[in-house]
Amino acid sequence: MPTQIILDCDPGHDDAIAMLLAHGNPEIELVAVTTVVGNQTLEKVTRNALSVARVAGITGVPFAAGCVRPLVRPVQTAADIHGESGLDGPVLPEPVLELDERHAVDLIIDTVMAAEPGTITLVPTGALTNIAMAARKEPRIVPRVREVVLMGGSVGVGNTTATAEFNIVIDPEAAHIVFSESWPVTMVGLNLTHHALATPEVAERIAAVDTAPARFVGELIEFFTRTYQQSQGFDAPPVHDPCAVAYVIDPSIMTVRRMPISVELSGALTLGMTVADLRAIAPADCTTQAAMDLDADRLWDLIVDALERIGDPA
Amino acid sequence: MPTQIILDCDPGHDDAIAMLLAHGNPEIELVAVTTVVGNQTLEKVTRNALSVARVAGITGVPFAAGCVRPLVRPVQTAADIHGESGLDGPVLPEPVLELDERHAVDLIIDTVMAAEPGTITLVPTGALTNIAMAARKEPRIVPRVREVVLMGGSVGVGNTTATAEFNIVIDPEAAHIVFSESWPVTMVGLNLTHHALATPEVAERIAAVDTAPARFVGELIEFFTRTYQQSQGFDAPPVHDPCAVAYVIDPSIMTVRRMPISVELSGALTLGMTVADLRAIAPADCTTQAAMDLDADRLWDLIVDALERIGDPA
Amino acid sequence: MPTQIILDCDPGHDDAIAMLLAHGNPEIELVAVTTVVGNQTLEKVTRNALSVARVAGITGVPFAAGCVRPLVRPVQTAADIHGESGLDGPVLPEPVLELDERHAVDLIIDTVMAAEPGTITLVPTGALTNIAMAARKEPRIVPRVREVVLMGGSVGVGNTTATAEFNIVIDPEAAHIVFSESWPVTMVGLNLTHHALATPEVAERIAAVDTAPARFVGELIEFFTRTYQQSQGFDAPPVHDPCAVAYVIDPSIMTVRRMPISVELSGALTLGMTVADLRAIAPADCTTQAAMDLDADRLWDLIVDALERIGDPA
Amino acid sequence: MPTQIILDCDPGHDDAIAMLLAHGNPEIELVAVTTVVGNQTLEKVTRNALSVARVAGITGVPFAAGCVRPLVRPVQTAADIHGESGLDGPVLPEPVLELDERHAVDLIIDTVMAAEPGTITLVPTGALTNIAMAARKEPRIVPRVREVVLMGGSVGVGNTTATAEFNIVIDPEAAHIVFSESWPVTMVGLNLTHHALATPEVAERIAAVDTAPARFVGELIEFFTRTYQQSQGFDAPPVHDPCAVAYVIDPSIMTVRRMPISVELSGALTLGMTVADLRAIAPADCTTQAAMDLDADRLWDLIVDALERIGDPA
Repeated sequence: MPTQIILDCDPGHDDAIAMLLAHGNPEIELVAVTTVVGNQTLEKVTRNALSVARVAGITGVPFAAGCVRPLVRPVQTAADIHGESGLDGPVLPEPVLELDERHAVDLIIDTVMAAEPGTITLVPTGALTNIAMAARKEPRIVPRVREVVLMGGSVGVGNTTATAEFNIVIDPEAAHIVFSESWPVTMVGLNLTHHALATPEVAERIAAVDTAPARFVGELIEFFTRTYQQSQGFDAPPVHDPCAVAYVIDPSIMTVRRMPISVELSGALTLGMTVADLRAIAPADCTTQAAMDLDADRLWDLIVDALERIGDPA
Repeated sequence: MPTQIILDCDPGHDDAIAMLLAHGNPEIELVAVTTVVGNQTLEKVTRNALSVARVAGITGVPFAAGCVRPLVRPVQTAADIHGESGLDGPVLPEPVLELDERHAVDLIIDTVMAAEPGTITLVPTGALTNIAMAARKEPRIVPRVREVVLMGGSVGVGNTTATAEFNIVIDPEAAHIVFSESWPVTMVGLNLTHHALATPEVAERIAAVDTAPARFVGELIEFFTRTYQQSQGFDAPPVHDPCAVAYVIDPSIMTVRRMPISVELSGALTLGMTVADLRAIAPADCTTQAAMDLDADRLWDLIVDALERIGDPA
Repeated sequence: MPTQIILDCDPGHDDAIAMLLAHGNPEIELVAVTTVVGNQTLEKVTRNALSVARVAGITGVPFAAGCVRPLVRPVQTAADIHGESGLDGPVLPEPVLELDERHAVDLIIDTVMAAEPGTITLVPTGALTNIAMAARKEPRIVPRVREVVLMGGSVGVGNTTATAEFNIVIDPEAAHIVFSESWPVTMVGLNLTHHALATPEVAERIAAVDTAPARFVGELIEFFTRTYQQSQGFDAPPVHDPCAVAYVIDPSIMTVRRMPISVELSGALTLGMTVADLRAIAPADCTTQAAMDLDADRLWDLIVDALERIGDPA
Repeated sequence: MPTQIILDCDPGHDDAIAMLLAHGNPEIELVAVTTVVGNQTLEKVTRNALSVARVAGITGVPFAAGCVRPLVRPVQTAADIHGESGLDGPVLPEPVLELDERHAVDLIIDTVMAAEPGTITLVPTGALTNIAMAARKEPRIVPRVREVVLMGGSVGVGNTTATAEFNIVIDPEAAHIVFSESWPVTMVGLNLTHHALATPEVAERIAAVDTAPARFVGELIEFFTRTYQQSQGFDAPPVHDPCAVAYVIDPSIMTVRRMPISVELSGALTLGMTVADLRAIAPADCTTQAAMDLDADRLWDLIVDALERIGDPA
């Protein structure tokens, strides 16, 4: 039986690929998609999510818009990486899906409360604002969620600052809430995703699929390659978000290590750092773990396979 | 036409008196009562609110329970002041009202969105968790609310710490959200409420009303007097929360001064301090003001008057 | 017998008046003058101190230069208040005194260690960098000092920020060291000094002394009046630093209240605030007190008297 | 010509070995030894330094005691690692050297100011209190020092906390001062020193030297092995401090990488973390670098060689 996930995202180039991977892979059942301010404004990322749904041929899945701003801090977007639309590069088709009327926070709560306990996995690939709000509004979701597998944070190097990753630092209080709740949290952070590089060889494999969605992904990667070169000096761009979905599909494509992880809320140099305690064996009641090493080839196998299964939606 | 208020509270001895004042005074229409963790757990303060409703004879007003914990910090209650039940002293009658099924956050949002813009005043007398969650979940309520008149904070002396007041310090991030939104905020803080003392003369005036609700208030004050003597060295207890309601009824019973007020979120000694800038004239776009001087006699006149109007509910 | 003081200062208009008061008053013996970066660079304030010494006819007192920068934070001066020279307004005479070869920190240590225990009072009227360095380099001075009477901080309103006073906020770590050592500390802060206003009547009294030093003070006040009007909106300028010297001369010209006072080192809005705990009676081992109410007339009596005693130095 | 160093230390087992290495190696001229509170109280570590001098046969080198406490924070020692004396294990011989009368801060300043510019290397192996005080008291030492090679901090894992190393976290403000001054700083931190393990093979090589100093080192390692097993779960103890001396002797035994390094002064989880920015190439004016990889065999070669050269002092 496939794993039921709620994808909470801010598309975003790598979020779009994550959505395609989740939709195309048979081990995943996408039960809801929710959006949150992050890579761009809520309005833009929500529109992008619906456009990607059309590209991917996703139907019958509720999409809901969530928070327009972080809990405590002002809005900070990533136009330098994702462009003015949040998904610059390909032409974005007009959405056909209608948004669910509910707020993302309520869709998350309703979905988790309606499902069997232990069945729903939350996969946030943006700021953790919606997830944190849901946990605070309806604390009973916490023990009912199977696990939280999130793209964000890092064990070691940051991107927005020397120590902090974008998704965490733009709403560190929300991240603190998610990491300190009692559900199991797997952090798929920069230390791992910086090895998920969309190299020219990868781009070629994707081009070879030769469908509209594959061409869409190719154009996303082309744009992403350019902005990552210009703004962060990477040769090939790290494609962060699909790594979290890939972990849900097949945990064996990465190693994980259990360790206490907390979010720094008050450092002058370390605000939003995911502080991992690597000094010793994690205590028995530790609920957090970090993804450490990636088998990048198998990640791209999964993505290519998903694109092939999706084919050319009508 | 009376002012429509949502009372967001954590009864609590002075919250109970605030509710009686709001119910008994003809200038106020109580359109909803919401509860929030604070003086005691959410379960206890919600039960207390319903008991007070029965004492006061409140019917036809929706009551809803809200957040069980602050946004970021752990739960901190005030059993030293309010006792194990949160409303120790009088016998609490079994509630007759049923709780609204909605979460307090949704009741607040629904009420504000359904009313004419500029008609609803929010009167929080506990931590600002519900109000902050509502502003974040539905930002459109902010320009629709008439004003926020809250009991909390201080210009100067604190109570929980040297610089911070209990309602603010137990959820400083929520307070930050409320103070920094664009709605008008009137802070009725300790600098004012420490002059709203329930002296023996006050107790006598209330006893003279000689109704069941008045006797209930008398028993609240008796308990409150004892705990304030023991834990904070006051001769007579400050009855904080009715001051916020009184300001809505008749702003002329206190002076207010416009000044920028912000909440300190990171000080080692000043966490949760409401930082008021008294250095100069407030800028033209300043949306915050603090209550400064109280005509205490007129406050007690209003409370006695409300009790007389309530009489002995059937 | 006069009280022996070390004046640690950053002249500065009000520092200059403080030096004249200390020199002219018979209850004070000025045993050393040390300088510290603050109102202007160390070089400028040291030159100013020596110029003022010449104006006042001070001889036989060692003057030493101290720290060129705060312990941890970058240099921040107050040219908006004190001008480019740090003592703009009057013509500054060429110094005749030679600087002591020692560092101010060593002059402070040597002076305290050479004197009878309990005889030397430290009177800092600038940042506390030198005093903190001395206490850390030679901790044995702490129990030997009679008391520290400092101009700085505030109970309530700030000047550089809403909560912090200039002398404290420019080196909060040094202030923390001084306030938390075991010597008695009297804080003469803005809450008091904002009542030491050099009104036109005061200026007239000083003009009437009709000596070169009095004319020098008159020109200082004239400049100070202008900058305080422009930068802080005061009608007449508060003359802060002489208040600390006046307290040493005659503590009865102000009221003091014992209270725990600590310096906030990490607040976003409250860095450098002198946090006074006014909630209850100070504990028996409390070593800090704040000056609260000033008899301003008697302050000016002391200053006029000092100027008359100084007369016209040869 | 040998490199002239001032060893600023808090012996401490590994400090003692660092001192023996510096004394025995012909590439180093030990021009002063200064002590600072850290592994134990100043009194104890100073006594230990003099005892080690006797063991090593060090004469003609000034030893001076420095700061008894950190700049801002309270004293925190490491008795769990170094025992009650700070150098538990071997019998400590009665010192024969007399302490220099000067404060360590003044000995450092005098030594640097008296030497040719660019000749003196500072090698701190404890908290940076003395070095920071010297830089603040006499800023002219900063451009005259050749470089600062310190044991402390880490790129990654901490020991006292998840993110901070003991020498830095016990006086983070001092560390901030040292890292942010304009002299070149090489950080030899835990990321490197955790590979300088005194394994049984190492202990055997040292035992084979078969002199009194070698036996002394053997007993230090024996004790250190036990405490590191008990308190931090290491099989063999990391011998941190000699690594800094070894870098001065022969930089080729480790790799270094230039990177901006700053000290976190306000984090709740990250206080005292040495924040290294690994995101990109260091800017041209970057003055800080971190030691990254160690050739541990060559480190032990140097230590054994030094012990052989020292032989059995009379």
